[in-house]
Amino acid sequence: MNIGILGTGAVAQTIGSALVENGHAVQLGSRTLSNEKAAAWVQKTGGRGSQGTFADAASFGELLFICLNGAVAVDVVAETDVASYHQKVVIDVTNPLDFSRGMPPSLLPQYSNQFSLGEHLQKTLPHAYVVKALNTVTARLMVNAMLVNDGNHNLFICGNEVDAKNQVKHLLADNFKWKPEQIMDMGDIEAARLTEAIIPFWVGVMQVMGTPLFNYQVVR
Amino acid sequence: MNIGILGTGAVAQTIGSALVENGHAVQLGSRTLSNEKAAAWVQKTGGRGSQGTFADAASFGELLFICLNGAVAVDVVAETDVASYHQKVVIDVTNPLDFSRGMPPSLLPQYSNQFSLGEHLQKTLPHAYVVKALNTVTARLMVNAMLVNDGNHNLFICGNEVDAKNQVKHLLADNFKWKPEQIMDMGDIEAARLTEAIIPFWVGVMQVMGTPLFNYQVVR
Repeated sequence: MNIGILGTGAVAQTIGSALVENGHAVQLGSRTLSNEKAAAWVQKTGGRGSQGTFADAASFGELLFICLNGAVAVDVVAETDVASYHQKVVIDVTNPLDFSRGMPPSLLPQYSNQFSLGEHLQKTLPHAYVVKALNTVTARLMVNAMLVNDGNHNLFICGNEVDAKNQVKHLLADNFKWKPEQIMDMGDIEAARLTEAIIPFWVGVMQVMGTPLFNYQVVR
Repeated sequence: MNIGILGTGAVAQTIGSALVENGHAVQLGSRTLSNEKAAAWVQKTGGRGSQGTFADAASFGELLFICLNGAVAVDVVAETDVASYHQKVVIDVTNPLDFSRGMPPSLLPQYSNQFSLGEHLQKTLPHAYVVKALNTVTARLMVNAMLVNDGNHNLFICGNEVDAKNQVKHLLADNFKWKPEQIMDMGDIEAARLTEAIIPFWVGVMQVMGTPLFNYQVVR
């Protein structure tokens, strides 16, 4: 399918490359048509990927990924034509991290505690189906769940539309090797408050583990 | 050893009973000498436990547990004689949860994001060795790690003093069956920001799991 990715950083490129390898047509969107990181990525895909503006990518994709810096994500999305997102599944991979006080980060106050970036994105795109997913693991693991513990570890997703969440589950299983039974539906998009708030903790665990290549398995 | 517990709720009673069963002299502290919950608990221990005021319990214990409601913990501790805590290990089990908006809870704003209850308690007791521990699991699991996945799941602790953290590790291993290799030291007490912030998420996972008897295993 045609997939648009807003963003050109490591997360956007990693997801984009994995989707291209799975046969999808992928366009990375950025502020300018000539973004150098996107151009290098397009070359790396052997021209199977493409690049465009944020608006181009939003319009291109039947399904969209938002892989933007948490501090600017809502503004970037609001500046594109929100009609481009109409009835599309939008996978929100962002985290509202504030590194200004060093490591581990805190959350951007406007998206912390009783607020979240996922909810703000859903409010900005009222006619899209925003599903918060993949934000709780490192980029390499997002696109290959088998890299950790034979795929036995959990992904926590949330969103208002059950059908959209099911579509995301299938996409993650078919393209990124996530075992469906390991994907835990945390409820509606308000649960983004929960799954974003664990990211500073994730950074702390990463510092202890000495690698970002880990995840949590809920055990009983 | 003599152990004082500030609080008389389910967490305080569960920890108190487990410590009594392990041969420790335990005193539960509350606002009044005649607290009924503490009296019932003392009776349940066959008189092996005792009760007193907050100040009594703080003075009684060679080691202390703080099992208070997060909204009042700092005030309660500040109202006792802080000299009672001098050079004692203080295990902080509290969580700064705000249930006023329903479930899952948020964090009390004054202890969220760039702040934490653990840090406030350490500041209130500058000559004590505050170790944040056990706040990330349900009470029954706190005192018997074997109840979940044969004890293979992680406890996340933090505090400024390595010796105090080692003492807590030994206490948890000897009394509550925590495997030492499963206890992850997240750093100094500032890491309480991380380990308190994952509690609303814990409540969300509990709602999905349908039981509080679970925990996370970090896998790689």
